[in-house]
Amino acid sequence: MIVDCGVYAGGERQDLPKDPETVAQALDDDGECFGWVGLYEPSPAELRRVQDLFGLHELAVEDALKAHQRPKVERYGDSIVVVLRTLWYVDEGDAVETGQVSVFVGRRYVVTVRHGEGAPLTTARKELEERASVLGHGPPAVLWAICDSVVDGYETVAEQVEIDVDEVEASVFSPDRTSDAERIYLLKREVLEMRRAIVPLREPMEGFAHGSVPLVSPEAAPFFRDVADHVARVAEQTEGIDTLLSSALNAHLARVSVQQNDDMRKISAWVCIAAVPTTVAAIYGMNFDNMPELRWYYGYFVCVGGMAAICATLYVFFRRVGWL
Amino acid sequence: MIVDCGVYAGGERQDLPKDPETVAQALDDDGECFGWVGLYEPSPAELRRVQDLFGLHELAVEDALKAHQRPKVERYGDSIVVVLRTLWYVDEGDAVETGQVSVFVGRRYVVTVRHGEGAPLTTARKELEERASVLGHGPPAVLWAICDSVVDGYETVAEQVEIDVDEVEASVFSPDRTSDAERIYLLKREVLEMRRAIVPLREPMEGFAHGSVPLVSPEAAPFFRDVADHVARVAEQTEGIDTLLSSALNAHLARVSVQQNDDMRKISAWVCIAAVPTTVAAIYGMNFDNMPELRWYYGYFVCVGGMAAICATLYVFFRRVGWL
Amino acid sequence: MIVDCGVYAGGERQDLPKDPETVAQALDDDGECFGWVGLYEPSPAELRRVQDLFGLHELAVEDALKAHQRPKVERYGDSIVVVLRTLWYVDEGDAVETGQVSVFVGRRYVVTVRHGEGAPLTTARKELEERASVLGHGPPAVLWAICDSVVDGYETVAEQVEIDVDEVEASVFSPDRTSDAERIYLLKREVLEMRRAIVPLREPMEGFAHGSVPLVSPEAAPFFRDVADHVARVAEQTEGIDTLLSSALNAHLARVSVQQNDDMRKISAWVCIAAVPTTVAAIYGMNFDNMPELRWYYGYFVCVGGMAAICATLYVFFRRVGWL
Amino acid sequence: MIVDCGVYAGGERQDLPKDPETVAQALDDDGECFGWVGLYEPSPAELRRVQDLFGLHELAVEDALKAHQRPKVERYGDSIVVVLRTLWYVDEGDAVETGQVSVFVGRRYVVTVRHGEGAPLTTARKELEERASVLGHGPPAVLWAICDSVVDGYETVAEQVEIDVDEVEASVFSPDRTSDAERIYLLKREVLEMRRAIVPLREPMEGFAHGSVPLVSPEAAPFFRDVADHVARVAEQTEGIDTLLSSALNAHLARVSVQQNDDMRKISAWVCIAAVPTTVAAIYGMNFDNMPELRWYYGYFVCVGGMAAICATLYVFFRRVGWL
Amino acid sequence: MIVDCGVYAGGERQDLPKDPETVAQALDDDGECFGWVGLYEPSPAELRRVQDLFGLHELAVEDALKAHQRPKVERYGDSIVVVLRTLWYVDEGDAVETGQVSVFVGRRYVVTVRHGEGAPLTTARKELEERASVLGHGPPAVLWAICDSVVDGYETVAEQVEIDVDEVEASVFSPDRTSDAERIYLLKREVLEMRRAIVPLREPMEGFAHGSVPLVSPEAAPFFRDVADHVARVAEQTEGIDTLLSSALNAHLARVSVQQNDDMRKISAWVCIAAVPTTVAAIYGMNFDNMPELRWYYGYFVCVGGMAAICATLYVFFRRVGWL
Repeated sequence: MIVDCGVYAGGERQDLPKDPETVAQALDDDGECFGWVGLYEPSPAELRRVQDLFGLHELAVEDALKAHQRPKVERYGDSIVVVLRTLWYVDEGDAVETGQVSVFVGRRYVVTVRHGEGAPLTTARKELEERASVLGHGPPAVLWAICDSVVDGYETVAEQVEIDVDEVEASVFSPDRTSDAERIYLLKREVLEMRRAIVPLREPMEGFAHGSVPLVSPEAAPFFRDVADHVARVAEQTEGIDTLLSSALNAHLARVSVQQNDDMRKISAWVCIAAVPTTVAAIYGMNFDNMPELRWYYGYFVCVGGMAAICATLYVFFRRVGWL
Repeated sequence: MIVDCGVYAGGERQDLPKDPETVAQALDDDGECFGWVGLYEPSPAELRRVQDLFGLHELAVEDALKAHQRPKVERYGDSIVVVLRTLWYVDEGDAVETGQVSVFVGRRYVVTVRHGEGAPLTTARKELEERASVLGHGPPAVLWAICDSVVDGYETVAEQVEIDVDEVEASVFSPDRTSDAERIYLLKREVLEMRRAIVPLREPMEGFAHGSVPLVSPEAAPFFRDVADHVARVAEQTEGIDTLLSSALNAHLARVSVQQNDDMRKISAWVCIAAVPTTVAAIYGMNFDNMPELRWYYGYFVCVGGMAAICATLYVFFRRVGWL
Repeated sequence: MIVDCGVYAGGERQDLPKDPETVAQALDDDGECFGWVGLYEPSPAELRRVQDLFGLHELAVEDALKAHQRPKVERYGDSIVVVLRTLWYVDEGDAVETGQVSVFVGRRYVVTVRHGEGAPLTTARKELEERASVLGHGPPAVLWAICDSVVDGYETVAEQVEIDVDEVEASVFSPDRTSDAERIYLLKREVLEMRRAIVPLREPMEGFAHGSVPLVSPEAAPFFRDVADHVARVAEQTEGIDTLLSSALNAHLARVSVQQNDDMRKISAWVCIAAVPTTVAAIYGMNFDNMPELRWYYGYFVCVGGMAAICATLYVFFRRVGWL
Repeated sequence: MIVDCGVYAGGERQDLPKDPETVAQALDDDGECFGWVGLYEPSPAELRRVQDLFGLHELAVEDALKAHQRPKVERYGDSIVVVLRTLWYVDEGDAVETGQVSVFVGRRYVVTVRHGEGAPLTTARKELEERASVLGHGPPAVLWAICDSVVDGYETVAEQVEIDVDEVEASVFSPDRTSDAERIYLLKREVLEMRRAIVPLREPMEGFAHGSVPLVSPEAAPFFRDVADHVARVAEQTEGIDTLLSSALNAHLARVSVQQNDDMRKISAWVCIAAVPTTVAAIYGMNFDNMPELRWYYGYFVCVGGMAAICATLYVFFRRVGWL
Repeated sequence: MIVDCGVYAGGERQDLPKDPETVAQALDDDGECFGWVGLYEPSPAELRRVQDLFGLHELAVEDALKAHQRPKVERYGDSIVVVLRTLWYVDEGDAVETGQVSVFVGRRYVVTVRHGEGAPLTTARKELEERASVLGHGPPAVLWAICDSVVDGYETVAEQVEIDVDEVEASVFSPDRTSDAERIYLLKREVLEMRRAIVPLREPMEGFAHGSVPLVSPEAAPFFRDVADHVARVAEQTEGIDTLLSSALNAHLARVSVQQNDDMRKISAWVCIAAVPTTVAAIYGMNFDNMPELRWYYGYFVCVGGMAAICATLYVFFRRVGWL
């Protein structure tokens, strides 16, 4: 699906029909403007059409059709292709979902191909269109806006996941008996997904920030430096979450063991208290002819009283040593 | 065994007898064509014959005879030898099996030596023969086709193993009592096998992609860039699976502990409920002469009723505190 | 909030009104002096005012407004911006809290923007003002004083956390039954926070120490070398604490298991001792007509004595094998 | 002990007395030959004698006297000293033992000093003497032959240890109750020993293979490439074994927990089945005057039959829920 | 405290009074000699005195006063300062203690400042004074002697700790029930302390060995190569010990679990054996009127014999299945 097609000159969007052909034509007519074509899960035919108009590289287009690429930056002649993985958080199920944005950046065009439901680029486009001074830098500005928007998405997801981790922590260390292993494991899976999206991006973003990519002009570099910084921070945050989850799983295990120990001692104390009257009663249930106590008038009451006294003493004792 | 021998000129296979001698002769006659000889678990004699025809390096040939080489790329003069480990998945036993492909690439010939049952190269050859434009690049195109086919195999295996991991996960976190340690361990072994095949390939494939190997022309580099990318992705995927398996083993351990705890409390509750009537009955089984209750007409019924009441109360209590 | 504004010439503070405009003016008037403006959680307007006076870079100012930046050093033209995370220890709750100091260093000015309650810079300023020879180096001296003060803060925190670790250790290995998993986990969290502040600082401080940053003169480099050294040491100390905490958690787990084992054996020994009289009494409680022992005159006493003897023997036995 | 001394010219061993003096003399007389002196755990005097004859470096000789050096390659002027750790497997005890070979390589001599019982070099010498073409390369050929022989030893040991790991695995996952922690731990120790021998060798062998060591001629490099390759493979194999052992220990722990769980449930089920008749019997053992069942003619049989029925029902129930 | 002050010329100690002033004066008088001043935990005044005599750098002197520096090598103009951490083993408590040696090396002087009780330098001085040829190299020789002596100390400590590890191992795998977690943890702490002392030294020692430090002449480099080698070996040894301790802790945990399992089964078997006579006795203790067995003349004996038979059978059964 072709989402939006715009021609920009001097930081302003030109009022032209929104189809790729118009964009391509405008580029031919006028040496000052540049075009931005946005596609969403395009059919092969749609992508072919755009490819022919802007001369995109065969292999990069093949990559853009498939949704499970590794994040990367590649040069084809004087154009570059940036593949980003988008992340968004789905409240029901506390899941992190992933999509993909491929950005083809040439001297005078940007083509974006997006996969996945979340993380739309329309707000990024709108915000950029409102900042004429930035947009005036041309295609690198668009690339920056997209990277910035995608990396902002990473930070939102990381925050959500940190909230989930806080919940799991609270559950692990609550006095209730909980079984948190599954939740911790699932969070580790999410974190793994996040790392796969974020970590491979660190190096190319540093490249943009240091101006080592030809399309990115020295004035644009500080903007990418900001993005690179956010990528670095969110990457470290993700590492940190992962470490915490491992520790939480171990702490969970330790707590379960401590709890089992406590339960076992509590149970044993009660068994011990119950064993006393049973044993005493069994003794006085023996059928020996000559058992003087049995003949005593208050024998029974003394016996039952004695049992109660021993049980009470044991109870107090177990309380004191912390078993009950 | 000599599987196939072909002479290719201008991207087309020449109609010639399929034996190495014909191939070698064709190369002498005509300066434009190149030959591709495919061997499968060759006898030393067969390999010697091919070695003599194309002047393959002694040490590389020795390596090709043995099936347990480390993946590598080596230069001998102006030819290179690429050793790849092939992977395939065997459904019965959920096992990953490994084979080996050694590829000798010269200016005008390719010799492939394959070991192991799975991962045949015939489909790679067929597909390549149908793409004359690619095949026209000569030996590097053949090398690319083989690498691509082998790395595709890695991805298939990684997907299968991920399915296995999903099954193990489901089993670990199912409410059933399961003993998943062995399955997780075996999967870790498979992953180890995969890493041994994939990780050492990462660097040389990057070398091909950056055109730092003389035989690979700049036009061919983007194709290898694609392969390098797939190797990187599948290597990361394998790392990810390994991490997940470790976490799954820990989570399994945590769940077993939680379950044991639950069971222990449940058992203890029942023991406690059973202890009450036994103790009471033991008391009224004592043989004291003077036990007034025993003489009451409804004593027995009151006693049994009392036992039942206490047991029921305990049952409700244990239910409420979550022990039953 | 504007905390303090000073103009310094020849290592001496000039007696001028404390507002940024005066500082800026003084710089214009006199080519020898430099200014230091200190802000604490400034409003955007305050920061804008200072930005305009000294020509601070847009992006760096945006970073300084937000309190959760990653530690970094960045160059903008011939000025540099250093972002540091401050750490301080809060006794109640044994928590490590974090703040931020952004330092804008130009040829003739320093602007510091601080966030967070702890780790004030006033003492750093006072100490520096008393060392005219150091202060004479100009803005780099101020940068050094701030870095030194912040890194000193790290060391204080690390010492406090080490004390906490010692307490946890003592608790883990005390003969008392303790549940230390939560405390260890929380300490791991603190350590993670510390690492996020300290580790990214290691490299830029090395850069200062090696004189690879233009503003830092060769004479100033040894001072930064000292700071870089402290950063390295406290980073290693933090790693060490982290490793110790992991080991402590494992040791805690091992001790809980050993303790459970000990308890279980102790309980079992008592159950065993109690089982003997119960079983014997049950046997002599049987109602067979012909049970000769029951008729013996001293049968009962022999029986009870026998029970006691067996119980005593068992007690001694269990003591000897270490179960009691 | 001087094991063997040979003078070689043109790939052939000269027929000369086997003592170091003869070798040294032959080198003086004839500019074409080279000598190989083999020592086994030499006395300081023996080593001093050889040192004086060939001018070996003081420090290197000191190292060769002690048996616990780290593997390394060092240059002294135009000679090099290679220290290798030898490994061999001792069947009784499944132990890996270590020795040491120091090789002094000069332009025209090789001196080898071996420590430890296993891994003799005589077969390496014999095989090399049969390959005149290789031996013709002079001292580097001898160095290669020794490295090759030592690294072959690594591979043999790694295979043996892998067999041990397979046995441990089989034991861990056998249905029998086993205590494999000690065996796994001891294997980890052996692996540690292996890594200490193998890993430091990786880099210098790569150096030989890339011809960056002056004594190794370009034609000899491919041979060392082969050795470097084997070192890399055996190093990875050792890493792999180590990882597997860690996983095996964890899996062992998980299985012990599962087994304990199973046992506990089984035991509890039997306790539960036994508790029913005891409780019922205790009830009918009470001495109430008015217990109608006691007077029924078939009361006893009904009662015992009821007990048996309940027990059987419980047995079937526990079987069905998997506790028995 | 000033321990010793010597002036050396041509490898021989000059017969002069032992105070720093004499040393400084001798250096002025005679261009051939060099001085070595040894301080032990000096007061600030003493250090100031020496600093003024030899022109030591301010910051380095500050470091030398404090005892908890990180090991490092730093250049100040044409002098270098080496900070080493000394290690020694204290038998009571099996503890590793640490001290510090700061070595100021100039063209013609060496000043050593030592902290901590153990690891004295007097033997190093004595041994060096006996080797005139080495001492003739001047200050680098002294530096080498000190490094060598300190690193020898590391090796002694590592050996002692390995003995402790062997003891812990023996304890972990002994059939006795032991609680080794604390000992293992404390050893891990010692190892951490050792790593902090040793690992940061690896790189600068390599620097000395490769002659990249101006004061160290090419002839002295091989001596430092030897020290660098020992540092590398002891660093690896320490890593190895750390790994072993982690494995030992895990193995300890596994063994405790196995032992608990064994104990539980043993206890359960005895409970089971005891339950049989109790249940049977309870049944024959019921008060039914019509219980034919009770009337049999040998009923009691048959019953008790039956109990004993069942118990014996159970005992044999449990023995056979390995529960007893």
